[in-house]
Amino acid sequence: MDAIGENPQNMGVPPVEGVGGGGTAYGWADGSLESSYSFRGVADPTKVPSAELLHVWCMHSTANIGQQEMPRPLESISLLAARNERESVQIAIRPKLSWGSSGIAGTVHIRCSDLCSSSGDRLVVGQSLTLRRVVPILGVPDALAPLDVPDTQINLFPGETTSIWASIDVPNGQPPGQYEGHISITAVKTETDSLLQSFGKSEKFQLYKELKNCLDVIQPVDEKPLEEVINRVKCATSTLKKVLASPTFQELYQDNGSADMMDEDALTNLSVHVKISITVWEFTLPLTPSLPAVFGISETVIEDRFGLEHGSDGWYSALDQHFNWLLQYRISPFFCRWGDGMRILAYTCPWPADHPKSDEYYSNPRLAAYAVPYAPILYCSDAAKVALRKELEILKSKVHWPKAYFYLWDEPLNLEQFELIRSMSSDIRAYAPDARVLTTYYCGPSDAHLTANTFEAFVNVPNLLRPHTQIFCTSEWVLGSREDLVKDITAELQPGKGEEWWTYVCLGPSDPLPNLHLGMRGTQSRAVMWRVWKEGSTGFLYWGANCYEKTMIASGEIRFRRGLPPGDGVLFYPGEVFSSSHEPVASARLEHFLSGMQDIEYLNLYSSKFGREEGLSLLQRTGVYLGPERYTLDHMAIAAMRAEIYRASDSLSEISSSLISRSQSPNLSSRFVNSIREGKL
Amino acid sequence: MDAIGENPQNMGVPPVEGVGGGGTAYGWADGSLESSYSFRGVADPTKVPSAELLHVWCMHSTANIGQQEMPRPLESISLLAARNERESVQIAIRPKLSWGSSGIAGTVHIRCSDLCSSSGDRLVVGQSLTLRRVVPILGVPDALAPLDVPDTQINLFPGETTSIWASIDVPNGQPPGQYEGHISITAVKTETDSLLQSFGKSEKFQLYKELKNCLDVIQPVDEKPLEEVINRVKCATSTLKKVLASPTFQELYQDNGSADMMDEDALTNLSVHVKISITVWEFTLPLTPSLPAVFGISETVIEDRFGLEHGSDGWYSALDQHFNWLLQYRISPFFCRWGDGMRILAYTCPWPADHPKSDEYYSNPRLAAYAVPYAPILYCSDAAKVALRKELEILKSKVHWPKAYFYLWDEPLNLEQFELIRSMSSDIRAYAPDARVLTTYYCGPSDAHLTANTFEAFVNVPNLLRPHTQIFCTSEWVLGSREDLVKDITAELQPGKGEEWWTYVCLGPSDPLPNLHLGMRGTQSRAVMWRVWKEGSTGFLYWGANCYEKTMIASGEIRFRRGLPPGDGVLFYPGEVFSSSHEPVASARLEHFLSGMQDIEYLNLYSSKFGREEGLSLLQRTGVYLGPERYTLDHMAIAAMRAEIYRASDSLSEISSSLISRSQSPNLSSRFVNSIREGKL
Repeated sequence: MDAIGENPQNMGVPPVEGVGGGGTAYGWADGSLESSYSFRGVADPTKVPSAELLHVWCMHSTANIGQQEMPRPLESISLLAARNERESVQIAIRPKLSWGSSGIAGTVHIRCSDLCSSSGDRLVVGQSLTLRRVVPILGVPDALAPLDVPDTQINLFPGETTSIWASIDVPNGQPPGQYEGHISITAVKTETDSLLQSFGKSEKFQLYKELKNCLDVIQPVDEKPLEEVINRVKCATSTLKKVLASPTFQELYQDNGSADMMDEDALTNLSVHVKISITVWEFTLPLTPSLPAVFGISETVIEDRFGLEHGSDGWYSALDQHFNWLLQYRISPFFCRWGDGMRILAYTCPWPADHPKSDEYYSNPRLAAYAVPYAPILYCSDAAKVALRKELEILKSKVHWPKAYFYLWDEPLNLEQFELIRSMSSDIRAYAPDARVLTTYYCGPSDAHLTANTFEAFVNVPNLLRPHTQIFCTSEWVLGSREDLVKDITAELQPGKGEEWWTYVCLGPSDPLPNLHLGMRGTQSRAVMWRVWKEGSTGFLYWGANCYEKTMIASGEIRFRRGLPPGDGVLFYPGEVFSSSHEPVASARLEHFLSGMQDIEYLNLYSSKFGREEGLSLLQRTGVYLGPERYTLDHMAIAAMRAEIYRASDSLSEISSSLISRSQSPNLSSRFVNSIREGKL
Repeated sequence: MDAIGENPQNMGVPPVEGVGGGGTAYGWADGSLESSYSFRGVADPTKVPSAELLHVWCMHSTANIGQQEMPRPLESISLLAARNERESVQIAIRPKLSWGSSGIAGTVHIRCSDLCSSSGDRLVVGQSLTLRRVVPILGVPDALAPLDVPDTQINLFPGETTSIWASIDVPNGQPPGQYEGHISITAVKTETDSLLQSFGKSEKFQLYKELKNCLDVIQPVDEKPLEEVINRVKCATSTLKKVLASPTFQELYQDNGSADMMDEDALTNLSVHVKISITVWEFTLPLTPSLPAVFGISETVIEDRFGLEHGSDGWYSALDQHFNWLLQYRISPFFCRWGDGMRILAYTCPWPADHPKSDEYYSNPRLAAYAVPYAPILYCSDAAKVALRKELEILKSKVHWPKAYFYLWDEPLNLEQFELIRSMSSDIRAYAPDARVLTTYYCGPSDAHLTANTFEAFVNVPNLLRPHTQIFCTSEWVLGSREDLVKDITAELQPGKGEEWWTYVCLGPSDPLPNLHLGMRGTQSRAVMWRVWKEGSTGFLYWGANCYEKTMIASGEIRFRRGLPPGDGVLFYPGEVFSSSHEPVASARLEHFLSGMQDIEYLNLYSSKFGREEGLSLLQRTGVYLGPERYTLDHMAIAAMRAEIYRASDSLSEISSSLISRSQSPNLSSRFVNSIREGKL
């Protein structure tokens, strides 16, 4: 009889003893208990320290904290931020046991304090310090649904890790220094009947009826004989006694009315405290991003989902809200609508140039670039042409005119489409010769057999579109991981004639290259802007931030469009899906993008002092970004790079010497970096 | 310039037009709306049909319904069941939009009716019809947490599918026939403040104080002058009026006390109704499983987690609960504790043989086999040997004695361990010569170099243990996918001397072979017993049903033991993790195992009429099970096999002819199978 064919190697390697059939070294005696408390029945969070009931630990903003994330030791949070910068960190919570009911492991109360400096300055909770719950989308932690501050409650589920996204926005004028505060997390009793509202309501109705009867009995006492009044009062007294002794009030009755309410002291004594320390330094991020990032917002999606008629008051108000909300992400939004083929109507301000709102939008210092609508793209009428001319006549004389661009066609594919761009551009340039036209593309015209291969055709596009395009915006997908091809693109451009190279990402490039798709690593999304900075393009475009599948219901399920990688074209979600709030809900990917935008301001600061070569060297030396397939997967490299820029900056010397030694000795500085590392910066 | 090295094939295949940069064919006009309702703001579930707010659809019990499961059309449920059988089905629910708040998409009310036959017989909700919520464990839908019936409420979350596990237990004496009923699912308002219990409590406290004051004012009215009484009453009247007009009662005030409570009619009109039809047929599953399946329950785990002292009243009560609970799964439990090496104390009844409980346990008709404790395994004292002798003297004369077995050692690995088994067996057989000893093994002794290879050594084990083992229980892992090796095992056994072949699964065999690990397909777990039946072993052993990692807290997080595949040794969970209930929570895998146990009773019925060869042919013909790597992944094959057994059974003729034609014509019978298929049986 032969050995078993299917398992030949296994037969020689029996299962681990003690595992194969059973005991796994657990049976007779296992000394270590994991808790000093033993809970028979339901654990009472009003008596047991919360640390016995739940794990709390901190993780970097770039971590994807899934429901299966395993606990780590709790360390305090230590962050570095410039003024006008947002820094975020995540607080993960996982129940050690269940103290709730109805499938909920338990409820936790979260309270945050202001962050205070020793000189009395504050980063105020609710304004500078905000909390959001990380909600999985297709199982991936992504949506950041706002939580109330300073106090909020969330439910935890058995065997699931929940993550809280804490952001600190440092105002422009914040005094530099070290700010400290904390977030307290306390297990609290879960309202057991929370799901059974009908009981609560019928109980309330019963109570109402009894009190009403009681009132009816004693109300008409005037001009009644004393005896009757006393009888009526006795009747009412008896009813009231019965009501007060009813189960409704039993818990209060027993505890003398307050013992069961968790008071401040209990909250403090039992809580898990997460200490937050943030060093605000002298550097102020420029209000206007030094590199424009223009992002599309589909007006069609807004109209459909929120049921808004084009041009109605509600429509203007919704667009205004989206515009202002996206500015905080260092993004220059444009609203858009696609036409036949890939013609596109793109505009940053929904009001015409002669409307007061126009200047308000275009002059906004947070806006780095704005799209001017090319009206004839919708209806090629004389009226549309007149409107375009009027628009241009007004705008071209404005101070903000250099921020203007036209985006007419998305990814032209053949000679006819190239010709259409040239024709529209001619119209524009007839009225405003210095107008800038942006064209996105990833290939040359498919029907022009002028070149040997597709990449040559792609590189040759500027020669086909000059002078009808100034901003040549190419897909990073074309480069793949070959950043050496950048010079082939830029070699064809004529910067002296105002020609610029911008880039974009959309469905490509795909993993492991930098992009903003759902499920990518945090550093992979953040790397989108590291890549832009290293490759040296001067602007960035993203096609759509709200391009979910069509629905006519504001709170309708979020679905990604078929044929696109999940998350492509969707960087925020409608708030209505998560709560009654109408404010958009950011994705973690949008926050990573913002971090990348902030990183390049750090890199620009460093390069302004030491030169671009030194900046590139720093990016490489710290391991943050070496190329499209070689960037850090770990947050530590980012912290090290930012700390190095902080340390190396002249402005360092202006910070209080108590905060950091002025010594330039390598030992001290590396010790500083280490201390930041150890502090989980 | 060359084509790009990294993306050569991609360059030739540009992204889908209309996708690459944007519009994905959605922009100018898209006629189809998905709903006839348009919800601005929050959708009101008291006014809108629930079908507009959520998807409801049915799936088979063998489906793993994850949170990302996509909706299908709703069809009614049609099941076939014998008496004394449990059939289950899943109802999946997914919100189309959000109508709740605080991160909850919305709350649904679930109500189920009795299932009634046309002759007035009933399958009663709560007894025969139960609902459980499918809770993910490590992200895999597995734990079945009980829900209240006939009415319950659950929360749905944005973008997540929730599954409800509905089981119908057909009692032994249930009249055959077709039973019909339904489960109604209704979106209801979510208590917005459910998470903010402190508000509710302080409001209640305020109310209590005011009513108490009111009572204090009017209570001492005896012997007071009329004027003072009237003043006091007026004061109380004013307080009561104020209370009744307070925001607490406002909703009742406005609606005259009831309008906002969802009444029966509204529940009915707006609900989604899932129709359930079950055909109960003449066949009654034998109360005693025809093949014993013995499953270990770790007493150590029970003692630790529930803080129970060995031998205390609570300890006996917990073991009793576990024993009775597992019987419903056609399982014959044994409690166990591992000793040095892999010696094991296994016993089915915690009370000694002279205790009345002993007969109650061992005579239970649901119990197919029981383990007798070999007391000396813990302390090899004279007292222990006396106890063993006494136990045997009593048991060996009982009617239930043929169900008895001893399980002494788990997977002996060397000659010393084989000798220990022989020695213990000798002790036992000295008092009871016809006692049966069960030994689990997957190899021969590693230090006996008698055979040419490991498989031969494994096959030779009976010759080493005879007559000291009667039940040779081998790991399915040894066979792998080679069921042709079965004959080599059985050839060595002497059935005439009472020798039997049983099998077991534990950490092996692994995917895609049948086992009970978390994450395996439903049919893969169900196939464990199909395999047993086809291979012809006469019993089955599973090492542990509650062997999670150690904790001293009843509601402590469930963790699987390190080194084991998730779910191995864990077939149910402590109820305390999911609610305040102490009843164990079954895994879906345990339900699949039960289904497999039921399937083999069907196969036995078929074989008893047509012979085992025909039974094997049916198993193969319907595609249910052809071998360890060739079994159905689809539920349809199972339904077809069961329907075929139902059709072919003589007892068919005893069922009301209105239910099913008696014709044996192949056309009609296949039409019946088809109708069952179409009905989603």
